[in-house]
Amino acid sequence: MTDSPNLPAVRSYLLGLQDAICTALEAEDGGAKFLTDEWMRPTSGPTGLGGGGRTRTLSEGAVFEKAGVAFSHVTGNALPPAATAHRPELAGRAWEALGVSLVIHPRNPFVPTSHANVRFFHATPKDGAAPATPTGSPIPNPESSIQNPGASAPTWWFGGGFDLTPFYGFEADAIHWHRTARDAVAPFGAALHPRFKQWCDDYFFLKHRAEPRGIGGLFFDDFNELGFERSFALLRAVGDAYLPAYRPIVARRQATPFGERERNFQLYRRGRYVEFNLVQDRGTLFGLQSGGRAESILMSLPPLVRWDYGFTPAPGSPEARLHEIFLPPRDWAGG
Amino acid sequence: MTDSPNLPAVRSYLLGLQDAICTALEAEDGGAKFLTDEWMRPTSGPTGLGGGGRTRTLSEGAVFEKAGVAFSHVTGNALPPAATAHRPELAGRAWEALGVSLVIHPRNPFVPTSHANVRFFHATPKDGAAPATPTGSPIPNPESSIQNPGASAPTWWFGGGFDLTPFYGFEADAIHWHRTARDAVAPFGAALHPRFKQWCDDYFFLKHRAEPRGIGGLFFDDFNELGFERSFALLRAVGDAYLPAYRPIVARRQATPFGERERNFQLYRRGRYVEFNLVQDRGTLFGLQSGGRAESILMSLPPLVRWDYGFTPAPGSPEARLHEIFLPPRDWAGG
Repeated sequence: MTDSPNLPAVRSYLLGLQDAICTALEAEDGGAKFLTDEWMRPTSGPTGLGGGGRTRTLSEGAVFEKAGVAFSHVTGNALPPAATAHRPELAGRAWEALGVSLVIHPRNPFVPTSHANVRFFHATPKDGAAPATPTGSPIPNPESSIQNPGASAPTWWFGGGFDLTPFYGFEADAIHWHRTARDAVAPFGAALHPRFKQWCDDYFFLKHRAEPRGIGGLFFDDFNELGFERSFALLRAVGDAYLPAYRPIVARRQATPFGERERNFQLYRRGRYVEFNLVQDRGTLFGLQSGGRAESILMSLPPLVRWDYGFTPAPGSPEARLHEIFLPPRDWAGG
Repeated sequence: MTDSPNLPAVRSYLLGLQDAICTALEAEDGGAKFLTDEWMRPTSGPTGLGGGGRTRTLSEGAVFEKAGVAFSHVTGNALPPAATAHRPELAGRAWEALGVSLVIHPRNPFVPTSHANVRFFHATPKDGAAPATPTGSPIPNPESSIQNPGASAPTWWFGGGFDLTPFYGFEADAIHWHRTARDAVAPFGAALHPRFKQWCDDYFFLKHRAEPRGIGGLFFDDFNELGFERSFALLRAVGDAYLPAYRPIVARRQATPFGERERNFQLYRRGRYVEFNLVQDRGTLFGLQSGGRAESILMSLPPLVRWDYGFTPAPGSPEARLHEIFLPPRDWAGG
């Protein structure tokens, strides 16, 4: 079975990605270091939620005011129906989910906030106890599509992507960000980039403000259509493209002079980030509602935020250009 | 029909209460003034949502960093089923909701944040067009329990209450707050205070943090059990008690010296307020999801907030005392 899901390989890639990103961000910051918080929680509750993680956070850096890069590997004995609305056959199954999720809040308002996430989801047969790595099981189980790919709908998938949230827009940055995203997924088919970009624009749309959260990037979920090996390669391509997409933008904007006006606009716009994550983001809400570790889930929230009643940027101002030119979805990567 | 709902009287009381509270808070601040933002929106959407309001906000005062006191009067042509889970007979009815809602964010960390809300809900018969004041209708409608109280379950109710969120606790303040609450509802029956206090403790419990938002106060909803006149009198008693409950606490704590440590703890704790309002508060979420005016609904959010990863107050510190002594529900009013 050459195309079976290889959970240890996914786990190993994710832990390595977390370290590589933290190392690069530390180098870019030039001083601040990530702290590591390893956590583990015993299996508990009616759905047998358990697992652990390694949350790495950096605070009060010269370049990064707050950066959180979290690895987690969570397991459950019975997938709640709410989590399987479009895969009812998985309700009640044991499952595990692995992922790296990160949000970077830079200090300089001319450096955009960025978010990335790569994840793998895997459901095991109903009669399985705690989820095990399929490669460790010598006996094929007829109920398991993991060990019998093609026998039924796959019970594993990948998801992920990255998106950029500038406070002050720069066309060169937007083009670089989206071209890097496009080039990362190009080897897997020309149709993927437009599809994942659109998905990203749709997902990161703040409904109650009727505005996009940022300028988008890539977003995908439920992805297994290329089989395990190629789908995993796609995940790695996306994960590996995050630093080349983001780091050059950080490098060229971090020394831009700014004052109280730009700082206030940054803190104000960070409020939209909080609103999106707490009101709409499915991962955040699922995590909080299912009894996840609040401190790790909410590590994405900005270090400092302001809400001003009725603020509207002056027409023609740099702040207004964000809404006028950058937030409306555009084909930044170009033809 | 002497006990029919009198909507103009409710509206008039609420507008007067909004003004009285703003005037008192301006006096307490000694300098800053409330700005008034009147808004109106045409009836639109599948459920015919319309209405208007008068949002009053004060910013950057000497005592109050941000204060929002909002009056709104919202109407709809068809109550969505989600809003009437425990009153299915009201689905599809025209309705109107009036209320005053306020959140005060003081500058000094020794002055607690406070919240109050008084509201009236009124559903009209299915064949009614836009909701009308029942006193203006000379012909009794057999479908309408408004004009036939007792004929069927009432289609109107009151809700409201007030609650206090200190950053640094003071027993004298907690006792004063809860005694004022108790005395306000005492004329309406001895059972109400324990019931409304418990309801408040239950409602303002932040599930994902497993901690109370503050030290509570009063909370009630779906209230019509005393008939319209007495229930309205109860609402007024609660609305009128807010200033006597809060203002003396503001007065005696506003000059307490504080430094960066207390300020940071205040900004950190304000994060919990944001989390509660955006993740759990039914009024906020219903408002945002039903297409309400985001800027007015979110006027409750603090002016400046911080999120620190993994912060835990030092044992025995004044910050730890908040969790140890003040947040756990207690009978502050005493016997």
